[in-house]
Amino acid sequence: LCSIYGKNDFSLTNKVIFTFAADHGVAAQGVSLFPQEVTGQMVYNFLSGGAGVNVLAAHAQARVVVADLGVAEDLNVSPRLIIKKVAKATADIALGPAMTKQQAIQAIENGIEIFEAEFTKGIDIVGLGEMGIANTTPASAITAVICKRAVEEITGRGTGIDDIARQNKIKIIERALQVNQPDGKNGLDVLAKVGGFEIGGLAGVVLAACSRRIPVVVDGFISASAALIAAGLCSKVKPFLFASHNSVEPGHKAGLDWLELKPFLNLDMRLGEGTGAALAFGIIEASIKIAREMATFESGRVSREK
Amino acid sequence: LCSIYGKNDFSLTNKVIFTFAADHGVAAQGVSLFPQEVTGQMVYNFLSGGAGVNVLAAHAQARVVVADLGVAEDLNVSPRLIIKKVAKATADIALGPAMTKQQAIQAIENGIEIFEAEFTKGIDIVGLGEMGIANTTPASAITAVICKRAVEEITGRGTGIDDIARQNKIKIIERALQVNQPDGKNGLDVLAKVGGFEIGGLAGVVLAACSRRIPVVVDGFISASAALIAAGLCSKVKPFLFASHNSVEPGHKAGLDWLELKPFLNLDMRLGEGTGAALAFGIIEASIKIAREMATFESGRVSREK
Repeated sequence: LCSIYGKNDFSLTNKVIFTFAADHGVAAQGVSLFPQEVTGQMVYNFLSGGAGVNVLAAHAQARVVVADLGVAEDLNVSPRLIIKKVAKATADIALGPAMTKQQAIQAIENGIEIFEAEFTKGIDIVGLGEMGIANTTPASAITAVICKRAVEEITGRGTGIDDIARQNKIKIIERALQVNQPDGKNGLDVLAKVGGFEIGGLAGVVLAACSRRIPVVVDGFISASAALIAAGLCSKVKPFLFASHNSVEPGHKAGLDWLELKPFLNLDMRLGEGTGAALAFGIIEASIKIAREMATFESGRVSREK
Repeated sequence: LCSIYGKNDFSLTNKVIFTFAADHGVAAQGVSLFPQEVTGQMVYNFLSGGAGVNVLAAHAQARVVVADLGVAEDLNVSPRLIIKKVAKATADIALGPAMTKQQAIQAIENGIEIFEAEFTKGIDIVGLGEMGIANTTPASAITAVICKRAVEEITGRGTGIDDIARQNKIKIIERALQVNQPDGKNGLDVLAKVGGFEIGGLAGVVLAACSRRIPVVVDGFISASAALIAAGLCSKVKPFLFASHNSVEPGHKAGLDWLELKPFLNLDMRLGEGTGAALAFGIIEASIKIAREMATFESGRVSREK
């Protein structure tokens, strides 16, 4: 953090979590325990302040910026909701590409625009958050192809599917990779073929934040996959990224390892939304206070090693 | 926490870290990188607010109660320093018992008295902290005998000794166990033979806090050894204990495993003082807010599993 800011006496006054929502065509393959309508319901929950990320962001005194990047239903207009739909849900990745290349660019640019608009109000640190029923499926596909890992190894239970459903999910992801043949070295290609609109939007936030030298805290598995897309587009983002927690999704660690990030919270969380990033803010702020306020051996008049 | 408090709508207004200091005769065996005078110097640092625990306790809005349980030198009187010396440092455990059985009881009772005095000002949660040059040596001895682990396996580098010094430290601890033959099933015997005054005092804080149904957050390796002593005296304390972080000291995990505690912070810390407990407070408070403030599926109007 000090190297990003170029000093060690600063504070993180403006902490902002970007929680982006979108739907996924692959939900039709039965990869999630929850119905697709939950994506929109959770957006309303974010807006009314009742979700996990709202509670934890308030605890961290952080703002939550909620945006619809591609929720299937038309959401009610609200002054607290940014609507930048690329489309109403991606296409089913088991059958073909999630989106066109043009839509992938649009998703990223929407994320950049949302960051830039919020940046005018002040941002000192960013947290990534997301909501999208079935989005551990594209996140697994992204992680498998970019980090060159077996699908079996990095596919988890999402919101809690059983063994049989997980085996089905693995087959769907393997089929998506087979059908689409994404190029793991090309972040845009991976996003277009097996990604999601919220994932693309968050990749845009990463790019925009890093271009302004603002540190970015990765949340769980899906936001790590967005960071993988961003790093696939521009590897220079990596020194600006921080990991927060270690999710129960096995692919999360694979993504963080690829990004050379070490999470410091172990809470068996798997909620997304930006909840882990919000919890991490308090620890990160504490670390800055240590750099700024703690006495040195000299100022504290403490003897050195023998 | 909710089961301790018997409700789920409470808050942790009064957070208190007990940072106890004492010296160790075994320091004469060259087990630490730092001279013994640092114990007293760090107490003054705690009192002037410059230590790590001060910064992190302020971040968590917690009080720090500093007490001298057996520092070698006579410390200057201060209204912010509790002086309850059992003796000026323990005896060298490599040569014989650290203290008499009566002194072990005294150390525990001093801890109980310090807790009880502070309890009149209000305490909702306790953090354990300590300072004492060479005190990873008694902590290793305690952990080895109570958790039935090889000394080699649970002895670390303390403040940063090299391989040769660590081999010497292992030999000293093995000798201390050989010479004293502590009974791992008898917490008081272990404390008297290979413990420390700050460790005994913290064991007293654990007993006193749990008797009042106040949760206790274990800090690093030494405070875990104090919790082992307390659990050895009364196993009913275990449900009141919480782990904070995972120290670089290998014995820390052994102690936490024995206590059936899972730390949630991984920060490669090895400072003690209560620093890890202070950092944990913010996460623990966040967890209470989740229980208290987050919407349910029903109140948030979110659909259930299919």
